[in-house]
Amino acid sequence: MADINRQILLDQIPQGRLGREHFRFNEAAMPKPGDGELLVRTRYFSLDAANRAWMSGATYRAALSAGQLMAGGALAEVRESRAPGFAPGDLVFADTGWQEYAVLSARHLIKLQVTEPITYLLSVYGVAGLTAYFGLLECGKPKPGDTVVVSAAAGSVGMMVGQIAKIKGCRTVGIAGGAAKCALLTEELGFDKAVDYKAGDTLRALRAASPEGIDVYFDNVGGDILEACLFNMKNHGRVACCGAVSQYDTGAPHAPRGVPGLIVTKRLTLQGFLVMDFMAQRERALADLKGWVQNGQLKVREDIIDGFENLPAALIGLLAGENIGKRLVRVS
Amino acid sequence: MADINRQILLDQIPQGRLGREHFRFNEAAMPKPGDGELLVRTRYFSLDAANRAWMSGATYRAALSAGQLMAGGALAEVRESRAPGFAPGDLVFADTGWQEYAVLSARHLIKLQVTEPITYLLSVYGVAGLTAYFGLLECGKPKPGDTVVVSAAAGSVGMMVGQIAKIKGCRTVGIAGGAAKCALLTEELGFDKAVDYKAGDTLRALRAASPEGIDVYFDNVGGDILEACLFNMKNHGRVACCGAVSQYDTGAPHAPRGVPGLIVTKRLTLQGFLVMDFMAQRERALADLKGWVQNGQLKVREDIIDGFENLPAALIGLLAGENIGKRLVRVS
Repeated sequence: MADINRQILLDQIPQGRLGREHFRFNEAAMPKPGDGELLVRTRYFSLDAANRAWMSGATYRAALSAGQLMAGGALAEVRESRAPGFAPGDLVFADTGWQEYAVLSARHLIKLQVTEPITYLLSVYGVAGLTAYFGLLECGKPKPGDTVVVSAAAGSVGMMVGQIAKIKGCRTVGIAGGAAKCALLTEELGFDKAVDYKAGDTLRALRAASPEGIDVYFDNVGGDILEACLFNMKNHGRVACCGAVSQYDTGAPHAPRGVPGLIVTKRLTLQGFLVMDFMAQRERALADLKGWVQNGQLKVREDIIDGFENLPAALIGLLAGENIGKRLVRVS
Repeated sequence: MADINRQILLDQIPQGRLGREHFRFNEAAMPKPGDGELLVRTRYFSLDAANRAWMSGATYRAALSAGQLMAGGALAEVRESRAPGFAPGDLVFADTGWQEYAVLSARHLIKLQVTEPITYLLSVYGVAGLTAYFGLLECGKPKPGDTVVVSAAAGSVGMMVGQIAKIKGCRTVGIAGGAAKCALLTEELGFDKAVDYKAGDTLRALRAASPEGIDVYFDNVGGDILEACLFNMKNHGRVACCGAVSQYDTGAPHAPRGVPGLIVTKRLTLQGFLVMDFMAQRERALADLKGWVQNGQLKVREDIIDGFENLPAALIGLLAGENIGKRLVRVS
């Protein structure tokens, strides 16, 4: 085992767009586990828009501060265990931070069942898949025949939302940036329609794609696209508020018009959620997701980048929308 | 009976603040009821912020247009009936428009049970009381011990929301404009705290009045005050979206910041509603409201102005917040 633990620190808090200059590489001593702790080697990092949101202020966790280890979740392998129930070789998912090794308290960790490929533990069977599952079904409450619209539809959560909605008998519309992503949605992932928000008038394109209006909107982006969807919701429609990626990497957020006017006149329900609130129902969700993957109804796309040193660029690119499917960085 | 039916027309659509110049008086011929219709004499007009919202675009009804009879609801007395089930002297509530006489289709009308005073049919037993009842209980879902905040708290809906929340065992905070309204809330209507939004930093005052955060916010106003409440909501809080009076009488609406960011991170639910969606449960609500009025738990305040010709000034003043309680105009 190496003596050195490579780390990436968040050197400065970005005020506008995130860049490589906000990160700094560091070498620390190899940490040692105490009683009840595990030493783990990180294997795959999950890259998420939330990584950027944490830099902008308190969310469901305290804000990140300049100089600290960059926060981030990883699939990690136990190298040394000083906690009952864990042995070398076991896999866990944890907020290890951006480093090669981490010492974790075993207390809140779950030993993951190995799947093939193991990256599915970070995509369809991880936070992304569970977020899509619970957000759509528990907050969006789609009924067969409903029109379900999802933004960031070629991203890790969005592509699963559209496919699960289809499995539930809905008409699905994905909003994504660029012709290639839109073609993927309709030609490979079974979406009924795709709207390219980079092609111009999103409100009009959305109206054409959902001429009877929207029953359920799964919002990953906030801003202008949330606004366009609010204007196109049916009466009594539901909005599952999952994230606001359009707002994270900017110094000038855009508050959508129509709040609360359209919420009142259309009797809409907007419900925010975090996947962690649904963890008691995790096993049921995983059983559904595994069944759909195995019978071919739910297709998984991953976007895997190699190399620990590429973590900053991978996150910056994710915020610019360059990934299709779940973006991961393989580090060992 | 007069030969002439006095009317008030909406002469121009206001672009900014509503003024008397937007209205025009008119004299029409007395209308005659056909089969299935009633001729009614308007007695009390209900003045509501919604009257202004209808001028700004389509809501739950088509937008008003320049030159048409000004729309508005009134308690009216049947003078001539050509419909079964109605006789002269019966009372109905209907969108008669701003005129002294109207012909109405009897089809969707309900013959009202006479109460003492009959104005209660427009306040606590009318749209205002039912809006407070259903919005708070069905959308806000308060639990005993919850902190419930309501804006426009000295208005017809707001003052009932706070009192009903108190009846349900909640801690109640009212937001209103000016010291006199705030004193009324805490000294006469049983609110625990009042916040004067005209006194300066609403966010800070709200935090002082609800130091543990807000469980339920009943929003009558939108804009800055909605924003301040979103920033002060507890996790898993509920917002009942009833109206946006701060936004109606202006050419420059303010979209609240924190949408959807705070909705996600605090897992909030915002639910818009219209009282008409709850009419199947009307009798149960009226039974509760009558019980609370009779046992003194629910106090009613009305603000009655005399004279048909004062309708425009009464609405303009309502939008400026000059009323305390339900504003009515008595016309016969």
